[in-house]
Amino acid sequence: MKLQISALALVAALASTSAASAADAPSAAHLAAMKKLVASGQYKTAVAKLTSDYDRIVADLVTLTEIPAPPFKEQTRAKAYMEMLKAHGLSDVEMDAEGNVMGLRRGTGPAGGPLLVVTAHLDTVFPEGTDVKVRREGAKLSAPGIGDDTASLAVDLGLIRAMDAAKIKTKGDILFMGNVGEEGPGDLRGVRYLFSKGKYKDRIKYFISFEPGRERITNAGVGSKRYHVTFKGPGGHSYGAFGLVSPAYAMGDAMAQFGKIQVPAKPKTTYTVGLVDGGTSVNSIPFAMSMTVDMRSEGKAELKTEEDQFLAILPKAADAENATRSTANGKITVDNKLIGDRPVGATPMDAEIVQVAAAAVAAGGGKPSFGASSTDSNIPMSLGVQAVTLGAGFEAERAHAPDEYLTLDKPSDLQHMAIGLATVLALAGAEVR
Amino acid sequence: MKLQISALALVAALASTSAASAADAPSAAHLAAMKKLVASGQYKTAVAKLTSDYDRIVADLVTLTEIPAPPFKEQTRAKAYMEMLKAHGLSDVEMDAEGNVMGLRRGTGPAGGPLLVVTAHLDTVFPEGTDVKVRREGAKLSAPGIGDDTASLAVDLGLIRAMDAAKIKTKGDILFMGNVGEEGPGDLRGVRYLFSKGKYKDRIKYFISFEPGRERITNAGVGSKRYHVTFKGPGGHSYGAFGLVSPAYAMGDAMAQFGKIQVPAKPKTTYTVGLVDGGTSVNSIPFAMSMTVDMRSEGKAELKTEEDQFLAILPKAADAENATRSTANGKITVDNKLIGDRPVGATPMDAEIVQVAAAAVAAGGGKPSFGASSTDSNIPMSLGVQAVTLGAGFEAERAHAPDEYLTLDKPSDLQHMAIGLATVLALAGAEVR
Repeated sequence: MKLQISALALVAALASTSAASAADAPSAAHLAAMKKLVASGQYKTAVAKLTSDYDRIVADLVTLTEIPAPPFKEQTRAKAYMEMLKAHGLSDVEMDAEGNVMGLRRGTGPAGGPLLVVTAHLDTVFPEGTDVKVRREGAKLSAPGIGDDTASLAVDLGLIRAMDAAKIKTKGDILFMGNVGEEGPGDLRGVRYLFSKGKYKDRIKYFISFEPGRERITNAGVGSKRYHVTFKGPGGHSYGAFGLVSPAYAMGDAMAQFGKIQVPAKPKTTYTVGLVDGGTSVNSIPFAMSMTVDMRSEGKAELKTEEDQFLAILPKAADAENATRSTANGKITVDNKLIGDRPVGATPMDAEIVQVAAAAVAAGGGKPSFGASSTDSNIPMSLGVQAVTLGAGFEAERAHAPDEYLTLDKPSDLQHMAIGLATVLALAGAEVR
Repeated sequence: MKLQISALALVAALASTSAASAADAPSAAHLAAMKKLVASGQYKTAVAKLTSDYDRIVADLVTLTEIPAPPFKEQTRAKAYMEMLKAHGLSDVEMDAEGNVMGLRRGTGPAGGPLLVVTAHLDTVFPEGTDVKVRREGAKLSAPGIGDDTASLAVDLGLIRAMDAAKIKTKGDILFMGNVGEEGPGDLRGVRYLFSKGKYKDRIKYFISFEPGRERITNAGVGSKRYHVTFKGPGGHSYGAFGLVSPAYAMGDAMAQFGKIQVPAKPKTTYTVGLVDGGTSVNSIPFAMSMTVDMRSEGKAELKTEEDQFLAILPKAADAENATRSTANGKITVDNKLIGDRPVGATPMDAEIVQVAAAAVAAGGGKPSFGASSTDSNIPMSLGVQAVTLGAGFEAERAHAPDEYLTLDKPSDLQHMAIGLATVLALAGAEVR
């Protein structure tokens, strides 16, 4: 889960990504259809099941939270979640080659038709060795990763049980998934695989990623480019070899020049030097220094322009250093490694998935909060597949911090899980009575 | 041991530190006196003892090398060396409050008179956990720290045995010492203590520090100032908090500006950014970034000027960043910590200690190689106490590298140990027949 920007900023952002204004969702027709769905007996039965299942959902999220899932090390949690998917009676339960786990809830339509993906990500930002034991003080449950995104995995299982309890059938198949690689270094590898090599890749009509929160409808994906840049040189003794070129001055110059880049406020475009590292000792001219850079934009062209400006700075900084000091023992060179590449994308406001999600929030007594963020939905959005990232129902705080926690609030939690249920049912073509 | 600059560069350097030219040492009188000393029967007996003791000197250096002595963790080796000093019959053997170990070889003069310090440093540059087992392949002995400066500790013990075997008495006392804190982070703490708080501080007339090498006479001390600089700011999410001030741009600017400082070639003055570190994650505006800087000069005024220029850059870089981006959540601040402070100093070419050392090299069949370096002698030099750093006799290679080694060459090793012996005897006022 990445920080979501405000609806206000989004109006401007969407203007640039050719989506309609926030005022258009939900349409009267979508709201009316949704109101009919949530008034049905079967939906009410399903919500009753969610309610009676509340403690189990909480128990599941504690179980899953306590299985560490650092980036690229999600396998233990993935296997546990795969067993849970099997126990929920899904068909074709499997782990794909990237490490995603998934199973189908078959619809009434012919096999192989369009499907809805409902996913939450397995990975957390926390490294191996982090204490992930859940501490409970009253309604407050604390543990790294408990909200982002472990709680959503447990909620999705609750949705399956609720649909089953109410004997709800859908026209289309629903692929329930726990995916890998959403956080930083994972670079969306799980969902990227799903859409590039996964066996369902040509069948996905709608894509929902559940993340912590309530009433959020993330329908624009902030694109990002991340680079690890290393300046290299001959190095040497700080005193004996003084006068030789140094990666330190080249990198310092590049950092300073990068800080001068002008970016548009709309579409929002940002950059940062996140990390620096390097050198041999206090009394050595470094032979290598590195920096890690993050660039983001809601605009595809703006992200490209920013990236081009950044990439042009690097050789200039190396050249300037080579022109300033001696290259007798070697020149300063610069290596760029693209370590993150999240496409810009958006799902238009008039797309069915946005209309349905907004109608479910409104019919459920809430107020849709549209926004742009960088989540698993970036991948389908960039491919033109209708996708949204929605709040699963629990309200979590301090995501990405060791003191992450969520506060249980049963009536409100259930109200918002029911909104998610309604969204899933409507998109999968539920045949409710 | 620090890199020694060439005699050629030194001629210029010394001109600025008011020492005489290299051509003046040794004087004819000093050479004549030294020739007389080395022709004496007692000196020859002492050299014969060194020769018969060669294998023991090698055994001692292996024993000491295999006791790790990282900076600030010299105690185990210090205790072992203290026991060796005791076993050599010195009086007043002790460890001082800083961790130096020492013992007196009393002279024939009244107690409490001027004395000669003969020291080698206990510490190596290598961190805890480094494998310090000595590997021997033919004449090649390899281990981290074997040359710098462990071999000198063993040679100094050999000098005591040689003087005792020849029943040589000196007028003045000789304080044999193994000192702590010569390397990088130690910042000369052992010898600094000796001259500021040690009980012999007001009695030291001459100071010899033995280091690896042959015929080197380091009679100028390169001064250095080292800083650890931290730029701090409010930090924040790279996307959500974009626009806030960042330590990265302030530090990059400071690095680039530092790289533009103009320093004189004579006296040699240098600077480097040795290490950089900082940041939270690729997608965070850092709340702290640090760099470690080394500045050196053979000229006291030039070092001060350089330091002042550097220190002026830092707040300017912080101010520039505070003027460029938002300080709504806090400003960029900068902290400097002085982590190294080695005074500039020189022992003039006409000083007795330089003349005697040069005469011993010449009388021993060698050619004195004068130079400037940054060693324990910096401290007495800066205080006006006559001091030199001399080669103990073994030729070591790859100092400060894990593949450090020395190649045994018995005739040449002994020739150069005998030169050291002659220097010590002459300075302590040996009464040889």
